[in-house]
Amino acid sequence: MPVNLNAPDPTALHAVPGVRLGITMAGIRKADRRDLSVIALDEGASVAGVFTSNRFCAAPVQICRQHLAGVAAGGAGIRAILVNTGNANAGTGADGLARAQQSCQALAQLMGVQPEQILPFSTGVIMETLPVDRIIAGLPAAISALRPDAWGEAALGIMTTDTLPKAASTQVQIQGQTVTLTGISKGAGMIRPNMATMLGYVATDANINPALLQALVTEAADASFNRITIDGDTSTNDSFVLIATHKAAHARIESLESAEAKILRAALIQVSQRLAQAIVRDGEGATKFITIVVEGGRDEAECKLAAYAIAHSPLVKTAFFASDPNLGRILAAVGYAGIADLDQTLIDMHLDEVLVVQAGGRHPAYREEDGQRVMKQAEITVRVSLNRGQASATVWTCDLSHDYVSINADYRS
Amino acid sequence: MPVNLNAPDPTALHAVPGVRLGITMAGIRKADRRDLSVIALDEGASVAGVFTSNRFCAAPVQICRQHLAGVAAGGAGIRAILVNTGNANAGTGADGLARAQQSCQALAQLMGVQPEQILPFSTGVIMETLPVDRIIAGLPAAISALRPDAWGEAALGIMTTDTLPKAASTQVQIQGQTVTLTGISKGAGMIRPNMATMLGYVATDANINPALLQALVTEAADASFNRITIDGDTSTNDSFVLIATHKAAHARIESLESAEAKILRAALIQVSQRLAQAIVRDGEGATKFITIVVEGGRDEAECKLAAYAIAHSPLVKTAFFASDPNLGRILAAVGYAGIADLDQTLIDMHLDEVLVVQAGGRHPAYREEDGQRVMKQAEITVRVSLNRGQASATVWTCDLSHDYVSINADYRS
Repeated sequence: MPVNLNAPDPTALHAVPGVRLGITMAGIRKADRRDLSVIALDEGASVAGVFTSNRFCAAPVQICRQHLAGVAAGGAGIRAILVNTGNANAGTGADGLARAQQSCQALAQLMGVQPEQILPFSTGVIMETLPVDRIIAGLPAAISALRPDAWGEAALGIMTTDTLPKAASTQVQIQGQTVTLTGISKGAGMIRPNMATMLGYVATDANINPALLQALVTEAADASFNRITIDGDTSTNDSFVLIATHKAAHARIESLESAEAKILRAALIQVSQRLAQAIVRDGEGATKFITIVVEGGRDEAECKLAAYAIAHSPLVKTAFFASDPNLGRILAAVGYAGIADLDQTLIDMHLDEVLVVQAGGRHPAYREEDGQRVMKQAEITVRVSLNRGQASATVWTCDLSHDYVSINADYRS
Repeated sequence: MPVNLNAPDPTALHAVPGVRLGITMAGIRKADRRDLSVIALDEGASVAGVFTSNRFCAAPVQICRQHLAGVAAGGAGIRAILVNTGNANAGTGADGLARAQQSCQALAQLMGVQPEQILPFSTGVIMETLPVDRIIAGLPAAISALRPDAWGEAALGIMTTDTLPKAASTQVQIQGQTVTLTGISKGAGMIRPNMATMLGYVATDANINPALLQALVTEAADASFNRITIDGDTSTNDSFVLIATHKAAHARIESLESAEAKILRAALIQVSQRLAQAIVRDGEGATKFITIVVEGGRDEAECKLAAYAIAHSPLVKTAFFASDPNLGRILAAVGYAGIADLDQTLIDMHLDEVLVVQAGGRHPAYREEDGQRVMKQAEITVRVSLNRGQASATVWTCDLSHDYVSINADYRS
C-alpha cells in the first residue's frame, strides 16, 4: 500500500507547449499492457539528463549519453524520447546496443529525423534480449496517438510494477508569463519481472539558454532523485531527463543567478521532489515514509554518508516496519557510516520532536512510549545532529516489510 | 534453520593449557539463562584483538582497547576475559564507561589482579543501562565454575539469539609437540532483544613471541570474520580476540615467516573461518549459505568491493531465498560496487560450474534450468571474473528471507 500517495488527477497535469506524448501497447512482455511511449519534442527543444552511476549500465543509457554528447558537440537537437517497459536491455552486450540503435533508427525514420535525435529508455528484466521487432511494430500506433495532454497516460505507460502512476505539474510566473513544468516518474517496483529502474522526465516551456540545462538537471537530481533510496540497489537504467521547449514568451534566461532562474529552479526542484518522493511512497512493500535529516556535519558529503547508512540499514528499516523505537540501530548505522573521526559523544538524535539521544547516550528524560508514539506514524522524521559543523543533508526512504521480501522473492514468470 | 550447521560435540573441543572457563546465570536480562562468562588466563598469556570499526563503539570495546594499549606499553598482562549477554552497553555515554570499569574492578578484586588486566565484552540491547550490580553479583559463581574443559559451555554462555552454539577446535604438530587451537563465536542474532554483536575468541597454547600476535589476529580476522556479512550492519561491539598461553613445549616462534608460524597460521585461519562461517550458517532467517568469489581484479580491495556489493544487495539476497536465477541483479551489484573504471564487457560470471555471463552479456549456451538447479542448492558459489588483473577475494553470506524480517521486526520484549 503506497504511503500517502494517490494517482494524479490527469486534468491537473498541464500540457507543456512543444511536447506531445503517445502511448501504445506493443506486447513487449505481456499483452494488453501500455508498454511503449513516445515523447515527441518540437524542433528547438533542449534536453539534458543525469544517468545511472552503475558501471554495468544498460545499452539505452549508453546510447542516450552518446546522443546527448553529439548534440553538445553541435549536432541536431533531440526530437523524441522512446520508452519501453518489460525489458531493461541491460547485461545484453553488443547485441543489446545494436537493438537499441535499431529502435532509434525506426522511430527516426517515421519522424523524418536522424537516429541521433532519439533518446531510448528501457525498463524491465535484466539480461534478456530486447524484442526490438515488437517495439518497431508498435511505433506507428504510438506516433498516431501523440497529443499534448497525454501526461497522465504517459505516467501509466512507463509503469512497470508500480502500484500507482506518478506525475507532478506546476506553473509559475516569469516576467508575467505563465511557465509550465510537468513531469512523470516510475520506479521502486524491482519485482517480478525484476524491474529495477527509476525513470523521471520533466518538461518545461521555459525559455532558457540550453547551455544552462545540464547544471539545472544535475542540481534538481541532487535535491530529489539522488536523495531517495528503497534498498540501496542502484539500477543499470536509472535516468532523469529535463526537457526545455523554450516556447514561453519571457526573455531567455541567460544566468542561473538571475531572479527568473531562481523561480524556475525552485519550481523544478519542487516537481522533482514530488516525483522522487512518490517513488519512495510507492516503494516495494512500503508502509512508512521516512525523512532522514543529518545536520551539524562538517560538509554535506559526510551528512549524506550518515543519512544513507541509516536509510540502507536493514535493521533500522525493519524496526520502522515494526513501529519499534529500537533506536540504538540508528546510532550504530551512524557509527559505521564511514566518517573516520566521528566523535560519538557529540551526537544528538530526535525522532520527530522527541529528543532520544543527547551527547551520544540515551537522554535521561526520554521515555520509550514517546518514541513508540512517533514510530507508529505513517510519516516519520529522524534528525541526527553531529554537532561538528554547519552542513546538513536530507534523504527519503521507506521501511523494510514482509511484502518487500515477498515481492522480490517471487519467481519471475 | 541453520544451513548445514550442527551443535559442536563438547568432547571434540580440546582444552587449551593455561585457559579456564566459568559460566553462570546472572539474570542480566532474563532469568535462567547462561549470560555471564569468565575466561581466566594463566599468568604469562598474551592477548591481541581486532574490534569493530564502528565509531559508535560500545563502552567495553573502548576499555578493551585501553587495556590492550596498556599491556603494549609495558603493563601487566591480561588475566581474564569477561563476557555478558543481554546488554551491549553501547550508546550509553560516560555512565556506560563507568559501569564497564566497575565490572573490571570487581572481577580483578576477586582474582587478585589489576582492573587493567581484565577485558570486558558485552552483547545485547543497545542504549540501555548495563545492570552492573547483577554482573558483579554473578562473578563469584562464574569464578568457582572455572575449568579447562568448559569450551562447549562457554559457546552456549555467549549466545544471545543464536540458534546453535558455535565452536571449533584443532590440533597441529609443531616441532613434534601437539599445539591446540580452540575457539568460540556468536552472532547473527540481531534480533529481539536487538542482539547486534559478533564475538569471537580463539585460544592456543602455542609458544609465540607476543609481539607477533596482533599481526596474526589481524590476518586471521581478514580471512574469516571480516569476510562474512548477514545484512551489512556493523555492530557497535564486534570483537575477535586471540589468546596465546605459550604453554606448548616447542621453541618460541620468533618470525611469522618461519615454518612453525605457517603451521600455526593455517590452523588459526581454519578455526577462524569455521567460527565465522558458523555465524553465517546461523544467520537470521538464513536458508542458504553463499560463497561469493570475485577474481581477476587489479587488487584485492576492488574484488572485496564487488563481493560485498553482491553480498549486501537485498535484491540478490531475496533472489537466493526464492531460488530464482535472477542473475542480472548480481551484475547490477557489481556495476554499482564503486569500481570507477570497470569495463562491463570484460565480465564473466559462473554460478557453481554454470557459465552464465560472458563478456558482459548472457552466455548463448546458458539455460535457465541450469541456473535454477544451482539456485535450489543449500550451498551456492557465485564466481565473478573481472578479467583485468590477478587479485581475488571471497566473502560468505546468506539469503534474505521472510524470517529475517520477522525476527528483526519483532518488538523487543
